[in-house]
Amino acid sequence: MQAFSIGVDLGGTNLRAAAVTPGGERLESVSQPTRLQAGPQAVLDDIAGAAQTLLEGRANGKLLGIGVGSPGPLELPAGILHHPPNLPGFDGLHLREELERRLGRAVSVDSDANLAAYGECLLGAGRTFDSNSLCMLTLGTGVGSGIVLEGRIWHGMQGAAGESGHGPLDPNGPVCPCGAKGCLEMYASATAIVRRAGQLGLGPGADGGNGSAAPLTASGVAHLASSGDKRALQVFDEVGRALGLSLANLINALDLPLYVVGGGAAAAWPLFAPRMFATVREMSYVYRLSMPDDPAVFQPGRTHIAPAQLSDAGLLGAALLPVHAHDPVA
Amino acid sequence: MQAFSIGVDLGGTNLRAAAVTPGGERLESVSQPTRLQAGPQAVLDDIAGAAQTLLEGRANGKLLGIGVGSPGPLELPAGILHHPPNLPGFDGLHLREELERRLGRAVSVDSDANLAAYGECLLGAGRTFDSNSLCMLTLGTGVGSGIVLEGRIWHGMQGAAGESGHGPLDPNGPVCPCGAKGCLEMYASATAIVRRAGQLGLGPGADGGNGSAAPLTASGVAHLASSGDKRALQVFDEVGRALGLSLANLINALDLPLYVVGGGAAAAWPLFAPRMFATVREMSYVYRLSMPDDPAVFQPGRTHIAPAQLSDAGLLGAALLPVHAHDPVA
Repeated sequence: MQAFSIGVDLGGTNLRAAAVTPGGERLESVSQPTRLQAGPQAVLDDIAGAAQTLLEGRANGKLLGIGVGSPGPLELPAGILHHPPNLPGFDGLHLREELERRLGRAVSVDSDANLAAYGECLLGAGRTFDSNSLCMLTLGTGVGSGIVLEGRIWHGMQGAAGESGHGPLDPNGPVCPCGAKGCLEMYASATAIVRRAGQLGLGPGADGGNGSAAPLTASGVAHLASSGDKRALQVFDEVGRALGLSLANLINALDLPLYVVGGGAAAAWPLFAPRMFATVREMSYVYRLSMPDDPAVFQPGRTHIAPAQLSDAGLLGAALLPVHAHDPVA
Repeated sequence: MQAFSIGVDLGGTNLRAAAVTPGGERLESVSQPTRLQAGPQAVLDDIAGAAQTLLEGRANGKLLGIGVGSPGPLELPAGILHHPPNLPGFDGLHLREELERRLGRAVSVDSDANLAAYGECLLGAGRTFDSNSLCMLTLGTGVGSGIVLEGRIWHGMQGAAGESGHGPLDPNGPVCPCGAKGCLEMYASATAIVRRAGQLGLGPGADGGNGSAAPLTASGVAHLASSGDKRALQVFDEVGRALGLSLANLINALDLPLYVVGGGAAAAWPLFAPRMFATVREMSYVYRLSMPDDPAVFQPGRTHIAPAQLSDAGLLGAALLPVHAHDPVA
């Protein structure tokens, strides 16, 4: 009888679910658009339906648990959403309770950024760099972040730990929707990349060879930079600078063996990594104490900064959350 | 038979030791100048001698362990000093091993900033605010910092966790001896307070009523500020701003229930706290989610920032280190 767990990744665009072995092997997946317009109750029904489909497909297996990742802010351990910017209309939703009622089983919930960090730690960069502690920055519409300490997600008092995307880097910088100024998110998110490209004069259609004036995207800016466009290269240089400052603060505070940069915009790693590493070297003496000879090669006892390795860390992290929740601490 | 442990606080100026009950009550203390000029071997002999004196005085008691706090950087768990700026000539000293050899017993060592955080957590602000997790910033010649998570000191990979004093706040700020720019230490240490006062035109003797031209000290600047001197008030306003930025980063990353500001310069709390709290409110939405109605009054589930409560947190933390080292994690 094969043991498995079910992970669900509730995104603002897509709802994905998978049955996964305790070792992280994906047995079966389902995916559908997130029906935001239909409202929270319909989306909850869809989540429960996806889990039910996977359960029915494995009636002879042994279910180890169900884990669900959601955009935050998520009050934990209660699992209540508070004004999630990427799930309009979901404020106050008791995500865990509603799903447990629909499924008649215990459900573990956590934020997508925490579960991406957890998935990378258990199955991705954490394996490569032999570490059960890491901090992951996820570059998307915003900048999410999650911290895993000795194999456990560090939630903090109210589940708000790992909000380093809103750590101020420059108190005179641009105003962030969170109310602070000069947050990491204002420099390193996909949104920030497009905004900064616009400020430098790269407009709609700048990346297109087809004569259209499609809105510029972060990957479009990356494409331009790869072709040698100086303004696009400057955008990613600034992304690297901001990530380096944030990582310097995190390294000095936490002295972890591993920091991971993931999310869609992390595909531009070769464009921002040189400036990111230069900034960390300049700004963190803790890093200088322990930097590896080659950042890409694992050296025990050194501080590694690496790109994420999994495309679906959040989904796998959600699946493994209930499996390891009660493991003894290492 | 009374159980006790011995704590030693090795400072750049004084060497203090105490026999302490497991509940933190001090039974007996000894203190002497640290004989830095006589060299590391003489200082090691003095530490062992102080511990031996306390042991002989309690021959009928039950010794639970010996803990020693030292200025860092200290490689842990090995207990080796690496270029400690406040202990010139001690580079490469195997502090733990040398003391164990002299005393014929196991000795626990840790950095003074970590042990101050640990002492405050177990016996000071941690009690008042009912928290077994905190981050403490110690404002002295430099800015030390220590993190306690669920009752255990968080050391990080190489014992360098809690170096938030060297987290960059302003990448265009003044160059710090650590090599980075605009570190917290460049704004909030006693050294920084004196330097900034000088830049604003407050010179030697500015705080004296006795006609002498004694060098200005941080407490002298605080005295001037308390008397209404506008330049001195500006110095502490800037200290508050820097502490607020650092705390905003720490709160967003860690979401702890308690942050403590200690060390000599923390006596100026009333002078820097208003700007510190205003900056944290502005720069940390995690703080705004959970700030207490009155910062000085404990409210469960809120984020508290408080002055240190113990004058000898480092010494008490050193004494309690071996007592709780093997407690199960809460």
